[in-house]
Amino acid sequence: MVGPEIERLIALLARLPGFGPRSARRAALRLLQAPEARMLPLAAALTEAARAVHPCGVCGNLDSQDPCAICADLARDHAVICVVETVGDLWALERAHVHRGVYHVLGGTLSALSGVRPEDLNIASLQRRVAEGGVREVILALGATVDGATTAHLLAERLAGSGVAVTRVAQGVPMGGALDVLDDGTLATALRARRPA
Amino acid sequence: MVGPEIERLIALLARLPGFGPRSARRAALRLLQAPEARMLPLAAALTEAARAVHPCGVCGNLDSQDPCAICADLARDHAVICVVETVGDLWALERAHVHRGVYHVLGGTLSALSGVRPEDLNIASLQRRVAEGGVREVILALGATVDGATTAHLLAERLAGSGVAVTRVAQGVPMGGALDVLDDGTLATALRARRPA
Repeated sequence: MVGPEIERLIALLARLPGFGPRSARRAALRLLQAPEARMLPLAAALTEAARAVHPCGVCGNLDSQDPCAICADLARDHAVICVVETVGDLWALERAHVHRGVYHVLGGTLSALSGVRPEDLNIASLQRRVAEGGVREVILALGATVDGATTAHLLAERLAGSGVAVTRVAQGVPMGGALDVLDDGTLATALRARRPA
Repeated sequence: MVGPEIERLIALLARLPGFGPRSARRAALRLLQAPEARMLPLAAALTEAARAVHPCGVCGNLDSQDPCAICADLARDHAVICVVETVGDLWALERAHVHRGVYHVLGGTLSALSGVRPEDLNIASLQRRVAEGGVREVILALGATVDGATTAHLLAERLAGSGVAVTRVAQGVPMGGALDVLDDGTLATALRARRPA
């Protein structure tokens, strides 16, 4: 009942995270009602981003310049590298303005289930950056998951003897979190890592 | 911290219905990770739909042919016109396969609040279609809202004396709906419109 052009647009929109067939239809309709004002600008932005944006050769961040704006920023502390799983994690830390050093995007975590091996991650490039010198600390900001812990363990092992401090972000009760809704693992970790009040 | 190309893409994605800044970032990231496989096809689909799709000159449906596939379908009953507010409503009825006649898209409802007047809706074209003859029934499939009722009232008035039957979709308890979660208005309407079991 819907033309092939609309059908195709809905199918592609439905593959966006957070979208299903229903919301994709709503979005397609909204776009179709303003081809000049909404559709063509979005098409242009997609084309332009696909052309311009590439992974940074140093850290793996996505940017239109290489090295990326963060790696090229001399005001940042290049002696502290924060290792993250994904560019999304990097964005989250940047939004929080909590890290003034640089980053290294692993591209995931080790995963026995998904078959992700050490050589599938950007570990060699991290070791190269550390070996080149000038690095004081590597902060592992990986997820508090089994795979995150396994990956952190491997990285600590690989970086041992390089002379840099390898640290890991703290685990515990998240800000604003009520204890009675937290899982046992978080409660146990938070209690074990308790500090003087 | 994010390049202007990514910034712009996120801003445009965030304007899609159902998307906010957070989900737009996630979607942008997913797209950026597969420029060839995801971004460029979506850009092409948007461009193609913006070029090809236009409102049907007869009923207002969106399609790449004019008259639209529904208006051009001789197997459908052109004597029964179902009046809907939006193309989204038309799609919903088509998905449900409940109407084998044709449609007329009003483009909204009268609204004192939003300042929508009769001349802002596709009412004149509906009257023309009816005046041209061959129409037996006009079904008003408008929302069960105050504005929907006002609009239905106006349409019934405008079509009075044209010789066509003007009907309205029934209101009541929706399929699968438990009575105790329904609002008073729906309960009152359902009770008032009760029928022999």
